[in-house]
Amino acid sequence: MVSFRLILTNFNSFVTRTNTCGELRSAHVGQKVTLYGWVQYQRQGLFLVLRDFQGLTQVIIPQDEAHSHLKELLSSAPLESVVRVTGTVSPRPLGQENPKMPTGDIEVKAETAEILNSCKKLPFEIKDFIKKSEALRMQYRYLDLRSPRLQSALRLRSRLVMSMRQYLCNLHGFVDVETPTLFKRTPGGAKEFLVPSREPGKFYSLPQSPQQFKQLLMVGGLDRYFQVARCYRDEGSRPDRQPEFTQIDIEMSFVDQAGIQRLVEGLLQHSWPEERGSIMTPFPSMTYEEALAEYGTDKPDTRFGMKIVDISDVLRGSGVHFVQNALSYPHGSIRAICIPQGVKYLTNKDLESLKESAKSEFNQVRQKLSLALNMQEDDVVLLAAGEHKQCCALGALRLLSANLLEAAGLALRDPTAFHFLWVVDFPLFLPKAENPTELESAHHPFTAPHPSDASLLYSDPTKVRSQHYDLVLNGNEVGGGSIRIHNAEQQRFVLEKVLKEDSEVLSHLIEALELGAPPHGGIALGLDRLISLIVDAPSIRDVIAFPKSFRGRDLMGNAPDYVTPEELEPYHIQVSWPLEEKEAKKN
Amino acid sequence: MVSFRLILTNFNSFVTRTNTCGELRSAHVGQKVTLYGWVQYQRQGLFLVLRDFQGLTQVIIPQDEAHSHLKELLSSAPLESVVRVTGTVSPRPLGQENPKMPTGDIEVKAETAEILNSCKKLPFEIKDFIKKSEALRMQYRYLDLRSPRLQSALRLRSRLVMSMRQYLCNLHGFVDVETPTLFKRTPGGAKEFLVPSREPGKFYSLPQSPQQFKQLLMVGGLDRYFQVARCYRDEGSRPDRQPEFTQIDIEMSFVDQAGIQRLVEGLLQHSWPEERGSIMTPFPSMTYEEALAEYGTDKPDTRFGMKIVDISDVLRGSGVHFVQNALSYPHGSIRAICIPQGVKYLTNKDLESLKESAKSEFNQVRQKLSLALNMQEDDVVLLAAGEHKQCCALGALRLLSANLLEAAGLALRDPTAFHFLWVVDFPLFLPKAENPTELESAHHPFTAPHPSDASLLYSDPTKVRSQHYDLVLNGNEVGGGSIRIHNAEQQRFVLEKVLKEDSEVLSHLIEALELGAPPHGGIALGLDRLISLIVDAPSIRDVIAFPKSFRGRDLMGNAPDYVTPEELEPYHIQVSWPLEEKEAKKN
Repeated sequence: MVSFRLILTNFNSFVTRTNTCGELRSAHVGQKVTLYGWVQYQRQGLFLVLRDFQGLTQVIIPQDEAHSHLKELLSSAPLESVVRVTGTVSPRPLGQENPKMPTGDIEVKAETAEILNSCKKLPFEIKDFIKKSEALRMQYRYLDLRSPRLQSALRLRSRLVMSMRQYLCNLHGFVDVETPTLFKRTPGGAKEFLVPSREPGKFYSLPQSPQQFKQLLMVGGLDRYFQVARCYRDEGSRPDRQPEFTQIDIEMSFVDQAGIQRLVEGLLQHSWPEERGSIMTPFPSMTYEEALAEYGTDKPDTRFGMKIVDISDVLRGSGVHFVQNALSYPHGSIRAICIPQGVKYLTNKDLESLKESAKSEFNQVRQKLSLALNMQEDDVVLLAAGEHKQCCALGALRLLSANLLEAAGLALRDPTAFHFLWVVDFPLFLPKAENPTELESAHHPFTAPHPSDASLLYSDPTKVRSQHYDLVLNGNEVGGGSIRIHNAEQQRFVLEKVLKEDSEVLSHLIEALELGAPPHGGIALGLDRLISLIVDAPSIRDVIAFPKSFRGRDLMGNAPDYVTPEELEPYHIQVSWPLEEKEAKKN
Repeated sequence: MVSFRLILTNFNSFVTRTNTCGELRSAHVGQKVTLYGWVQYQRQGLFLVLRDFQGLTQVIIPQDEAHSHLKELLSSAPLESVVRVTGTVSPRPLGQENPKMPTGDIEVKAETAEILNSCKKLPFEIKDFIKKSEALRMQYRYLDLRSPRLQSALRLRSRLVMSMRQYLCNLHGFVDVETPTLFKRTPGGAKEFLVPSREPGKFYSLPQSPQQFKQLLMVGGLDRYFQVARCYRDEGSRPDRQPEFTQIDIEMSFVDQAGIQRLVEGLLQHSWPEERGSIMTPFPSMTYEEALAEYGTDKPDTRFGMKIVDISDVLRGSGVHFVQNALSYPHGSIRAICIPQGVKYLTNKDLESLKESAKSEFNQVRQKLSLALNMQEDDVVLLAAGEHKQCCALGALRLLSANLLEAAGLALRDPTAFHFLWVVDFPLFLPKAENPTELESAHHPFTAPHPSDASLLYSDPTKVRSQHYDLVLNGNEVGGGSIRIHNAEQQRFVLEKVLKEDSEVLSHLIEALELGAPPHGGIALGLDRLISLIVDAPSIRDVIAFPKSFRGRDLMGNAPDYVTPEELEPYHIQVSWPLEEKEAKKN
């Protein structure tokens, strides 16, 4: 498919406006225009500022007798009223141009106008709205949506996703396939919302991702699939999580790990917003083990140094008791991070706070040990001794220190920098937290073992690395994927023998692997998080049109809400009121 | 935004295959290629046919001793196994070219190969699969997905939606905004699935459409919104309905009915698949009243004539008792459709069946009345007498007759023709079926009255036409929309005074209308139905990757399914087993 296309966006098609409020320039002087917008500002019946999604235009209200009706109309329109204005574009009087305003060279002399919808008194001053509590802003989300902040975030999101689609669909032959969201509970899917059906006792489940479906599409020969997929996760109340979220979901046949990585790098490079600079590819890569050792986390923020250093060998001969003790453990070590110029930038209070954190995270730092380290004047060294896992706690201290340094004025992380990083070679299985003698999948049970470790699967599964890869951006996980198991026997072995799960619930998937499943793999990018990082928003709620509160509530429409017993009847369910509420109802 | 772009799809990026199985031509002769695909056919160890999503390629198995291992490998691979083949493209021997096969001029002489996944014995012969029951094909949906029929439907769907997005987003400045699917029950939303929340007694609801959200986006100044929106409707068991379906959801500010219509015409023209010819715009338009009078339905199939004719005046003087009787009713009339050459094409059995239908639909046709009509030799006339509504039943007979004529071999409707039609001027309210003295919205309570009828709203709401419009394609409703009420007072009047509904549940929307809501309107196109008509599929299940059965079940994964009482606990619900099941459990 080859075609040339000229893309020219027309915001004024199908409507009677001639221009948006952000469009007029000196070149338009003399033109008769019709604008539609909201009254942003009005001054003494002399002029008003009209606003729409694209910008602001100053409208001059005529003062002559013949236009007294027009003057009356425009002067009395409350702020945020919706108005149509027809008039002529004129240059602003000399000296009154506003260079900060894209339309600041012109003004529109109103000739006719209409109040399309008068705005009632707002529950607060609109200019103070941004300072109000997030709860109030979510209740009046439609007012917040008018802000340049949300307008630009949602528009950037739309453009970026469009560009991703063009890359995947037009350039690389991916097929956009919609998969069901009414499915059934997956094993261990404790975080899946349930949807009662009309069959007594039977429930659909809202899946956490289209994982099974995308693999089945590969078995179905679709070859290359993508979907901007709505996913659901019921985590109760958790800050900055949403019960429904969106992922760019991708799956390919006949691909390896490097293939998916190159695809994603190309995808992000292609769709990256021009105004955010450009990103370099290929992205650097780091093993899970390296990430933990050097950054104490599997999602390192590589925008700054202060890496964790293993100083076990330096201290081994020191004779300090707790060092010897720590090193006597099987995986014992002493590790440190050095905060350059820490003394200069960290106040005593900061250092106290670091010590407090250090105390709560692992064995306490000892003053006297600083002697054993090659420290520069004014450096602060944080040190951890103990087992591998405890040393990793330095990762959290590293981030805390970075925050403290930045709060003190040190420019540590470039806010305009985007550091992508692949983290690879994750373990395939991890010991269960509640019972370390049992294993669970580090990601999900469909992840394929690393080719070099395939035989270990049968002898020592704890040692098997996986073909899972995470994409990390500035210390945030923005994507994760893997090459999948395509062999039915291997899949059955993992489920039954390693994970000790009932493979029956996944029998349709295992059967599919038996009936001509191609090797395949894929990835899912967390769109909400990605966009929030690109626009530098503090929360994913700032890049979602109608987010839920952290308790999972829609504060505008008041969801979830009570329903009547009659409405529950077709679904054969009833509410089990908790005891205290039952009691309360009685009284 | 202006840019030139060359679109060139590469299906072989990021993988080691050099070509798809549908790609090789004479121009490739001599090239060394690597193909991946499924074994479609294998003959006596001499050659095999490899298949992928793009087509078929003939692979020649070498017969010399040096390649005996390769021969053994390829000869023994079961059908539908997944195979990699590397070899050289050669011209087929003279006379053995296959002009019906796009790759029929060449073959690939295999040099190395690998069985990537051997296929177990299929539960049926794959070539007979298409003839199997739909239930079996849905159980093994991933096998059915390999068929050219489903591959091409899903790929056309993806391409068409992509093209729609480009039209809306790139050419006309629409913003793709995702709206929540976990919301709250809308008044009268009896067909909404419920999702229990962790708050006792409180439920989310899966909305039937993003109606409220898209209106709120307009209030939020988004100006132009679209979304390929997942919608949910719980209708229990209904053939050719799906509990989740997709609509192209559109809303614009400052637009009128004609604006939306031109937009949609442009959208369909832009995205129409080349291979289905072109469509002419603007689409013809018909009022609701005309549609009912001439076609007996609000979604007329205008691909053929046989319109309903009012013959009241012709028969008024006939003196026949039942004619006089019918005409004595307030809206009484006599109407007829004439089936040209009906006698020739309709068998006695057909005529009997028509008579039977006629009998069940309304007063019986009387033989003697044919005299009063200007019939041609061999025509069949179907006649209805009675009130307006009864006469409309002729619409169903018209379609039944068309089916009978076509079954008899008459080419009545061109299967390649696409007749779009706007149906406009619907009534705003209709009497409730269960209590005709009360009114309900013909579409939804946010529909604006026709400007000419606005004052009637307060005096005689039954007479008010609406600004609703339906888009009909070949007799199927494929879209519907309206200009919405943007005035809070009018919205409150409609809800409280006309519909006698509690406006409290919609208080957030009414408040939004008070706080600067622009005039706005939109439309939703039923994507599944539209695609099924374009690809001439008998059911929307044929254009959905993983459809549910007509009972709403996923036959592959077995959803919905039972869950344990423990899984219900966090949601404070329990199953109310119907009595008979409770009894059965006891015994």
